[in-house]
Amino acid sequence: MPENFADRLLDAIRTKGSPTCVGIDPVYSRLPADIAEQKELNDESDSEVALDAVLEFCRRVVKIVAPHVPAVKINTAFFERYYWDGIDAYFDLIQEADKAGLIVIGDGKRGDIGLTAEMYARSALAEPDFANLDDLTGPDAVTVSSYFGLDGVKPFINVARDESKGVFVLVRTSNESAAQIQNAKLESGLTVSEHIAQQVEAWAKDFGLVGANGYSLVGAVVAPTDREEIMRLRGMMQHCIFLVPGYGAQGGTAQDIAPCFKSDGTGALITASRSVIYAYEDMKYLERWPSEWDKCIEQACKDFATEVNSVVLTKSE
Amino acid sequence: MPENFADRLLDAIRTKGSPTCVGIDPVYSRLPADIAEQKELNDESDSEVALDAVLEFCRRVVKIVAPHVPAVKINTAFFERYYWDGIDAYFDLIQEADKAGLIVIGDGKRGDIGLTAEMYARSALAEPDFANLDDLTGPDAVTVSSYFGLDGVKPFINVARDESKGVFVLVRTSNESAAQIQNAKLESGLTVSEHIAQQVEAWAKDFGLVGANGYSLVGAVVAPTDREEIMRLRGMMQHCIFLVPGYGAQGGTAQDIAPCFKSDGTGALITASRSVIYAYEDMKYLERWPSEWDKCIEQACKDFATEVNSVVLTKSE
Repeated sequence: MPENFADRLLDAIRTKGSPTCVGIDPVYSRLPADIAEQKELNDESDSEVALDAVLEFCRRVVKIVAPHVPAVKINTAFFERYYWDGIDAYFDLIQEADKAGLIVIGDGKRGDIGLTAEMYARSALAEPDFANLDDLTGPDAVTVSSYFGLDGVKPFINVARDESKGVFVLVRTSNESAAQIQNAKLESGLTVSEHIAQQVEAWAKDFGLVGANGYSLVGAVVAPTDREEIMRLRGMMQHCIFLVPGYGAQGGTAQDIAPCFKSDGTGALITASRSVIYAYEDMKYLERWPSEWDKCIEQACKDFATEVNSVVLTKSE
Repeated sequence: MPENFADRLLDAIRTKGSPTCVGIDPVYSRLPADIAEQKELNDESDSEVALDAVLEFCRRVVKIVAPHVPAVKINTAFFERYYWDGIDAYFDLIQEADKAGLIVIGDGKRGDIGLTAEMYARSALAEPDFANLDDLTGPDAVTVSSYFGLDGVKPFINVARDESKGVFVLVRTSNESAAQIQNAKLESGLTVSEHIAQQVEAWAKDFGLVGANGYSLVGAVVAPTDREEIMRLRGMMQHCIFLVPGYGAQGGTAQDIAPCFKSDGTGALITASRSVIYAYEDMKYLERWPSEWDKCIEQACKDFATEVNSVVLTKSE
């Protein structure tokens, strides 16, 4: 196994044949009926019961998607929702995804400074340094906030380098009001996002973090907003793999994500969350498999990979 | 009890006679010997044992400082360090601080968009909506990231408004490299921090969030950097209480924090963390109470309040 996270991720993408990632954002109210209606799992008002149902669903999703995608992105917020038991379940799911051979991205967008950032970096990314948690595996990579500048990110980079893991730094998000902050124009002519992109590229290539494929263990979270903007960001961050959210349910289409890739078809990992994990709510799949939610998810996952591949192949031809 | 968080906080400041807050950032290696050396708490390699020691210390700190300060700020990173059990301990400590009559600020700097932000807002700030956690109290306010613009903050504001709680939005941090991002100059002439400050003030005064004292439940995290910068930020955010980190161990002094207050002596809550909770490592206190760490903490807490008050009184004279 390569030591460098970017090399590991690229290997996994080659093996599965698609630069895709399934995002796991589970909510109890959308669980398939056959899980939510199981007697012992059917109580949304009890956090432990509801969480058991959520975890059961997520475990099954991981198994369904594992043959088709190289990675999953687990959204910590949906587990924090269930307090300490939720964090326990988040780690349970990481173990499950790891056993299924998936690269696991913990999407927590933590950020702080100094010793606080070190604490977050250790708990978010490091293998536990406690004897009683020896068997626990952490995620392969995490998302982090960029607002603190390098000192806020460096502790995560240090842990990532020491443990062959990765960091995706927040550069551009997909929400409408992000533009209020991220598209503000600087005197230099750059937007705030572009200014951060410049810094992230400098961090990515600076600390001997670049692997055999030319990518760094420091990547960037870049949502597919407008084409010109993404092309500029792609040009600015030559050493960064883009973790691209917003495909499917958040409105991103295959054409939107095309500029996230370099001309050789590398450089991005596209994430679809709700459009895959809740595919059994989509008439397109529901009509075909009215009572087999797992088949709906599997087909949606395959369709997602095919759509993304069509863009990558067109680009690299 | 007033409904508005800013009014509650100002009442608490008046009652305790000082706009101060003790930050709780516990690390096992700095625990007082008589806690770390207790047989059943003396094993840093076992996360549960180490956490029990950390929690025991924090509980005692809360009791020691409660008569002297209106608020404590609990840094979630230092609890996440211990995984799910750490989150359980974080909530235990909130209950303890709440019982001691303290306003509790959960310092997690969470941020995301859409439904993810709602999930964070509920778990970070709401009273639990699960029957089995009915007795659990959440923090009175939390810190949140600003990088997503309004949609990232609005879910926190909504929960805060509904539950008489508060939100402190990250505007300016104290670390050196923060300037790389936060001091970048915009075409408008503002820095990125100032631009965010303008937005935060707009959010703070906009949604009917302002209490009887003229402050909003939306406040701002503003570190005491340079005097001119803080005066500009103070001028721009008339409706925001500043949560001011960095006093003491991070290098902030009484003079540095003066511009965080308005001329009437209101408008800021000053936080000292390590300089208070580890006062027993400071020769100034250690010489006087070589084997009573609790007395060292109590005196450091009183000294901190006195120093901050000297600035506030000078200012409002």
